[in-house]
Amino acid sequence: MLRTNNCGALGLAEVGQQVTLAGWVQKTRNKGFMLWVDLRDRYGITQIIFDSERTPKAVFEQAQSLGREFVIQIRGEVIERESKNPNMNTGDIEILADQLHILNTASTPPFTIEDKTDGGEELRMQYRYLDIRRKPVRDNLLFRHQVTLAVRNYLSKANFVEVETPYLIKSTPEGARDFVVPSRMHKGEFYALPQSPQTFKQLLMVGGMDKYFQIVKCFRDEDLRADRQPEFTQIDCELTFVEQDDILDQFEGLTRHLIKNIHGVDVGEFPRMPYEEAMRRFGNDKPDIRFGMEFAEMNAVAKGKGFGVFDNQEFVVGIAVPGAAEYTRKQIDGLIDWVKRPQIGALGLVWAKYNADGSFKSSVDKFFTAEDLSAWAETTGAQPGDLMLVMAGAKDSTRSQLSALRMEMAERLELRDPTVFAPLWVTDFPLLEWDEESQRYHAMHHPFTAPKPEEIELLATDPGKVKANAYDLVLNGNEIGGGSIRIHDGDLQQKMFDLLGFTPEEAQAQFGFLMDAFQYGAPPHGGIAFGLDRLVAILGGQETIRDFIAFPKNNSGRDLMIDAPTSIDAGQLDELALVIQPKDEV
Amino acid sequence: MLRTNNCGALGLAEVGQQVTLAGWVQKTRNKGFMLWVDLRDRYGITQIIFDSERTPKAVFEQAQSLGREFVIQIRGEVIERESKNPNMNTGDIEILADQLHILNTASTPPFTIEDKTDGGEELRMQYRYLDIRRKPVRDNLLFRHQVTLAVRNYLSKANFVEVETPYLIKSTPEGARDFVVPSRMHKGEFYALPQSPQTFKQLLMVGGMDKYFQIVKCFRDEDLRADRQPEFTQIDCELTFVEQDDILDQFEGLTRHLIKNIHGVDVGEFPRMPYEEAMRRFGNDKPDIRFGMEFAEMNAVAKGKGFGVFDNQEFVVGIAVPGAAEYTRKQIDGLIDWVKRPQIGALGLVWAKYNADGSFKSSVDKFFTAEDLSAWAETTGAQPGDLMLVMAGAKDSTRSQLSALRMEMAERLELRDPTVFAPLWVTDFPLLEWDEESQRYHAMHHPFTAPKPEEIELLATDPGKVKANAYDLVLNGNEIGGGSIRIHDGDLQQKMFDLLGFTPEEAQAQFGFLMDAFQYGAPPHGGIAFGLDRLVAILGGQETIRDFIAFPKNNSGRDLMIDAPTSIDAGQLDELALVIQPKDEV
Repeated sequence: MLRTNNCGALGLAEVGQQVTLAGWVQKTRNKGFMLWVDLRDRYGITQIIFDSERTPKAVFEQAQSLGREFVIQIRGEVIERESKNPNMNTGDIEILADQLHILNTASTPPFTIEDKTDGGEELRMQYRYLDIRRKPVRDNLLFRHQVTLAVRNYLSKANFVEVETPYLIKSTPEGARDFVVPSRMHKGEFYALPQSPQTFKQLLMVGGMDKYFQIVKCFRDEDLRADRQPEFTQIDCELTFVEQDDILDQFEGLTRHLIKNIHGVDVGEFPRMPYEEAMRRFGNDKPDIRFGMEFAEMNAVAKGKGFGVFDNQEFVVGIAVPGAAEYTRKQIDGLIDWVKRPQIGALGLVWAKYNADGSFKSSVDKFFTAEDLSAWAETTGAQPGDLMLVMAGAKDSTRSQLSALRMEMAERLELRDPTVFAPLWVTDFPLLEWDEESQRYHAMHHPFTAPKPEEIELLATDPGKVKANAYDLVLNGNEIGGGSIRIHDGDLQQKMFDLLGFTPEEAQAQFGFLMDAFQYGAPPHGGIAFGLDRLVAILGGQETIRDFIAFPKNNSGRDLMIDAPTSIDAGQLDELALVIQPKDEV
Repeated sequence: MLRTNNCGALGLAEVGQQVTLAGWVQKTRNKGFMLWVDLRDRYGITQIIFDSERTPKAVFEQAQSLGREFVIQIRGEVIERESKNPNMNTGDIEILADQLHILNTASTPPFTIEDKTDGGEELRMQYRYLDIRRKPVRDNLLFRHQVTLAVRNYLSKANFVEVETPYLIKSTPEGARDFVVPSRMHKGEFYALPQSPQTFKQLLMVGGMDKYFQIVKCFRDEDLRADRQPEFTQIDCELTFVEQDDILDQFEGLTRHLIKNIHGVDVGEFPRMPYEEAMRRFGNDKPDIRFGMEFAEMNAVAKGKGFGVFDNQEFVVGIAVPGAAEYTRKQIDGLIDWVKRPQIGALGLVWAKYNADGSFKSSVDKFFTAEDLSAWAETTGAQPGDLMLVMAGAKDSTRSQLSALRMEMAERLELRDPTVFAPLWVTDFPLLEWDEESQRYHAMHHPFTAPKPEEIELLATDPGKVKANAYDLVLNGNEIGGGSIRIHDGDLQQKMFDLLGFTPEEAQAQFGFLMDAFQYGAPPHGGIAFGLDRLVAILGGQETIRDFIAFPKNNSGRDLMIDAPTSIDAGQLDELALVIQPKDEV
């Protein structure tokens, strides 16, 4: 071992000990007759002192050559510091060096290895191994490890078995595009990388594994939006002989355990809210319930006053923003511009101040009296001092626009406190959603989700109305998990494939093995999958998943550090019997 | 929950309780007035009794229809059995059913769901979900889970951090062929699936992560030998500021912990044996040391007696097989045939019996006197009653042939006791091996392995002689892990790439990021990787890794259950800008 202790370990108790430390030079301070080095490793920083009087001359001279990020090994005695640093674990002591061994030199890093670095995103990604030396990044990775280990131990104690499912599988249409892997042994054929182990975990239930989990990489070849990765990690779970509430209870337990263990907070029972209620109250199926500003449906108090913008639209809806009646005209104009941006796409925004003195002032004073606006206040729950913001349009799109505005207002008012955890189950999702473009139904969750048993008959007559035993776990406005009770009956599964537009031949080719399995005694089962990257980020009080991934890819799916993907050589293509289409034909 | 208890839980303590169980019908016995069902789930089997007198009539009649592997839910009272079954956990009780709910029917499975099934390998793979219902397969998967969880907790307690490295990376030449993944966003370019996270874990050390591990899938597109999988799982580890012995100590601790925890056996300190010694004593770098039959080099006692087969060969070597002097002529001829098979490739086998009465009898009595053979016995350590088996030829191939024979004799004599664990570190591997075909050196471990510091000078003059700080962990004759101290110096790494025949441009293109990283303060580091599939199999007292993988592929890399790989549709190929070469051009 090149060290007796790490750089975060020593304190007054060790004063007088001879120790050997190894690590990186965080910084040096040279006063001529004395030179201090902050020596850093994963565990902390320890101050080393080279002293022209007490340190051997050769060592003292060699220490002059030390630069930032040099890797060194030093030996010396732990001594008490004169001026202690209460902000450091090891702030009471320093090491008076008597030996120094430079294990490696270092060129000047392209950005500073500090908590607040001067490096831009791209540079830090290219030199990710240096970025990882920074405490915030390192802490995120350590945190991720703690969370995954806690998940594994919790689930294992609850009798779940982690089973590894294969990565080289078959293309399955789960809504996204598969990454494929050409086979050399079976030329012209391809494996696919899993978008999730969905069918395998169901087969494990058919196989009697009873309770399964896996922390597993999944792959989606999608055009990347910000903060989406082509490979991501899932906590994948499935259980047999359970009903929806059993699953919610089990994973509510897990989530509560994590929040309690990490933050010492008991968040109590999670509210459970049907999808329709979430849409009505928050315009969103993953509402952030750390704050109010619930939706008020205002058709009754807003229509029929001669204001065409409201009268001609399907749906008028508003929120009361607490304490925002004092917004200036400029601030309000800013909000109007904000909702008109193409990302939101609203046509406009009506506002009404419920002033602290009880008076009203609105952008539609021409059409609405104080009495009318008082009715608005009653509907939205606005109090004196609040600002009402109202939108109108088609129901779905208006809800979605106002939901975005609600989140934006919460950001501006700092209501999204990262130290508060507000979990929520959203249940009773629709089974299907109609796709205008392809003029057919898509599975809202996936094709294996079971309809609510009492609504199976509706499948034949009004499939769009059928609700599913499907649920999402929402934490602070982010979907961190989702799942469903699955179909375990071959005939019903066949009916679903029909509804989703699979021909019997397509269903057989892609899912024949699952349909076969359902013939041999498939038990009732269901499950859930958590997005680990997001879960960890949110538990860590942040939202950017990239910060919790050791080696993330950029928005075009490229690893800037290793420079992948790249071209491969002709021999390899030949072995795979593949030819790359010339660019001009593409 | 569809059950109050599982099928392995109930005993006399629960007699009188009303319970609900769910599971699969293992078998039924019908005596007309009584019908017994063995109800099975992951946890065990519980006997259910339907009684024409005590069970409601409708339920009793419905029970008549139950077939093997039906999925049922029953309610009833726990009663004490008249004839108890001491071989079952639940053998003291049975459930007198009063409700029966058939959750799913089942077609007759294609093979019996019994510990000893009538299903052949291929059929069981095709219906792996049924195979998993069999206790031996299920127990293997549960065992695998226990082992991996124990590994994770042990390493985490020792300050290792599990860090997920990416799966979509860049082709690296680690001896085997990469699986590649065409990129849609960067047409004509490819990711590669990792053969191991080698470079990433080294970068994590450069990044100061200090102690890393990961249980991770790796991929090799090789022509599959028996019991090799294109995707396999590795326990991948790396440490900073350590020397070879630190790594051996750490992972000896892990392995000892596993054996102790699983089998209650303390295997003590692991012997450490240099590669050369292992080759000399066992003709093999992964010797099974559960038994003796060590090699005796016999040139001194075998040559010069006029027996051309020995006189004309480089190397004569033998073993003494305990108690085998009574082998018949036919048995010995069988052995001779066995070594002549092309898999072994020996030209012949000389034998000499050291009879129990002290006399000798050999296949070369014409050339060797009793006194000569007595010298053989002294050299090989043969005792009266033993059989000496001697081979001659070129040193390397003869060692390898005799090593195979030694293992075969151990099998026949049942010396390979699966309940005995004999771990062994093999150390000081050669750094390089000469490849006749390509007329150049290959890295014996991989290109990042550090030469022994005191032998670095030899690199320039006699590279074949240089030993590496590389080590394998061998358990019962199987390599279960291997690793090395890595190069952390850019110049030395460049020298290694030169030696291995990389041009500077190739080295830069493939490993530029690693060479870059070595500029910014790379610490001394080293690591190890365990083959989890094999480790689990051997700890489980078996050797077939396929039996410990939930969904293995067959020898041609095909998943028989889901039928992968398969062709993909033209649109998908087009998106990837790929064309499949017509067959006749291949």
